[in-house]
Parts: sequence; C-alpha cells; structure tokens
Amino acid sequence: MTDPEWTDPHCPVARTLDLLGDRWSLLIVRDAFDGVRRFNDFRRGLGIARNILSDRLRALIAVGVMEQRPNERGTRNEYVLTDKGRDLFTVVVALRQWGERHAFEPGEEHSELLVLATGAPVPPVAPTAADGTPLDAADTRVRKVDDPGE
Amino acid sequence: MTDPEWTDPHCPVARTLDLLGDRWSLLIVRDAFDGVRRFNDFRRGLGIARNILSDRLRALIAVGVMEQRPNERGTRNEYVLTDKGRDLFTVVVALRQWGERHAFEPGEEHSELLVLATGAPVPPVAPTAADGTPLDAADTRVRKVDDPGE
Repeated sequence: MTDPEWTDPHCPVARTLDLLGDRWSLLIVRDAFDGVRRFNDFRRGLGIARNILSDRLRALIAVGVMEQRPNERGTRNEYVLTDKGRDLFTVVVALRQWGERHAFEPGEEHSELLVLATGAPVPPVAPTAADGTPLDAADTRVRKVDDPGE
Repeated sequence: MTDPEWTDPHCPVARTLDLLGDRWSLLIVRDAFDGVRRFNDFRRGLGIARNILSDRLRALIAVGVMEQRPNERGTRNEYVLTDKGRDLFTVVVALRQWGERHAFEPGEEHSELLVLATGAPVPPVAPTAADGTPLDAADTRVRKVDDPGE
C-alpha cells in the first residue's frame, strides 16, 4: 500500500476517502463490479480521458484494490478487483441505495435499480446489532483504542 | 437540490458521488454524526481552511444533506444533518468498516473502532436478501427501469 499523507491518520473513514475518495476511483470500482475489465471499456463507459483513467487504475492497483492480469487468451491485460476491492461491495451498494432514495427528483425517471436474480430489489443495507436490531448513529460511538472502554 | 452536470445521470452511485464525492463533504458528515455542530469546531477538527469549509457546508445545505439553524439560546448558528443527511449513516459506517479492515498496515496501531453502547464492535454491515442471506456482487444486477426484467 502506498503511504499517502493522511488527512486524519487515526480515522478509518478518512483513510478510506484518502485511498478512494476521488469520484473516478469509485466509479471504476462500480464498473468492475458490473464486469468491465478492459481499459477501453472503462474509458468508453465512463467517458473519461485516457490519462486520467490510466492514473486512477494505477492508484487503485497501488492501494491493492485492483490488479492487472492477462486475459484468458493471454493477448491483453485486464483490470480486475482483488479481494480487498471486492470487499468494497457494501460501500458501492450503500452509495447506490442512498442515491436511489435521494439523488433523483420526485417524478424524475428512476433509470436503474439494484435487484436480485429474481428481479426483486435488494433490501436496503443498514447496520444492525448482532441480533438484527437496526442501529442508528445514536446507538454507536467511536472508541479510541487506548480508551479502556466503559 | 442543485442540478449539477451529472457524471452519469442514470446511475445512483455516480449521482451520489457528484453530490458528495469531495472528501471534505463526507468528513463533515462524519463529524456531524459525531455531534459536531459549530463552524469553528468543524474547522478545528478537520484542519480545513475557513473558505473551503464554508464552501462545502454551503454545498451540503444546497443538496439538502445539512441545514443551518440557531442554537438553543439563539446566539449563533449550528450545522446539523437533515433526515436525508442522517440517511448517510450506512455509507459512513460502510466506509469506516472497510477502512478498519483495509486502510491500516498490519501492526499499525488501530486507533478507532465503531462500537455499540456495550463496547462491542458494530457487526460488519453487508447487503443481505430479505431472509438475511448475505449477498455478493454475483447475486445482484443493475436493472434498467425500462428493461422489463425477467
């Protein structure tokens, strides 16, 4: 992993945004989840300049979210998510579902929906306690690790 | 809501990143979840320049994620999350938990952890089907709304 100048070195939210906060990076990850693998397919799908795409793919590889590997016939390279990258699924789904709820005007055509194989919408992802009780911000706090807790 | 030039107008992920993709915006939202309300407290906590903070708060208000209101004594304004802003809880938790898992080097001191009132860690948030079965990217697809589905 590269060692950026962290905006807030103790906070996992801030570190994640430092690693991935650029909007293009997360859109590349989104497209990779949707099966895009080739440089030119990312470029056309995103409408992104070649040099910016190249730079962002390099950064995603440097932080271990994507890797470059030969395609099945060995004729060209493909860009695929690593395990660490696939673990961003919850982040992408949470962003997508918030957008489904809030980033379209009332009446504006809602053109995409995340669905299961059955066609049913994916239930909203939300933090829960171990027994399944939904949690909101008031139920949680950030504990400093050198804080002994209660 | 402002009407930005959407990077990808049909995609809720892209729209959300257009609305909030700036790293400062999500860090302001993070601090608001942690109870920060005053301009100078955001400024000191984030180490952000006054003009940038002012600009980002204005943008968060414009998209309906935060609102400005007088404090209890009516002596100054505070910045608080709206319902739409509080609905970002899952996004912030998903970013935080990915960071807890992947944004610290092995052996690097892990200084913060999201915990319940009991002190127990918040279980990893992840998409599930209605019956609680965990979902991964292979279980879901993005359906175009003008696509009749199955």
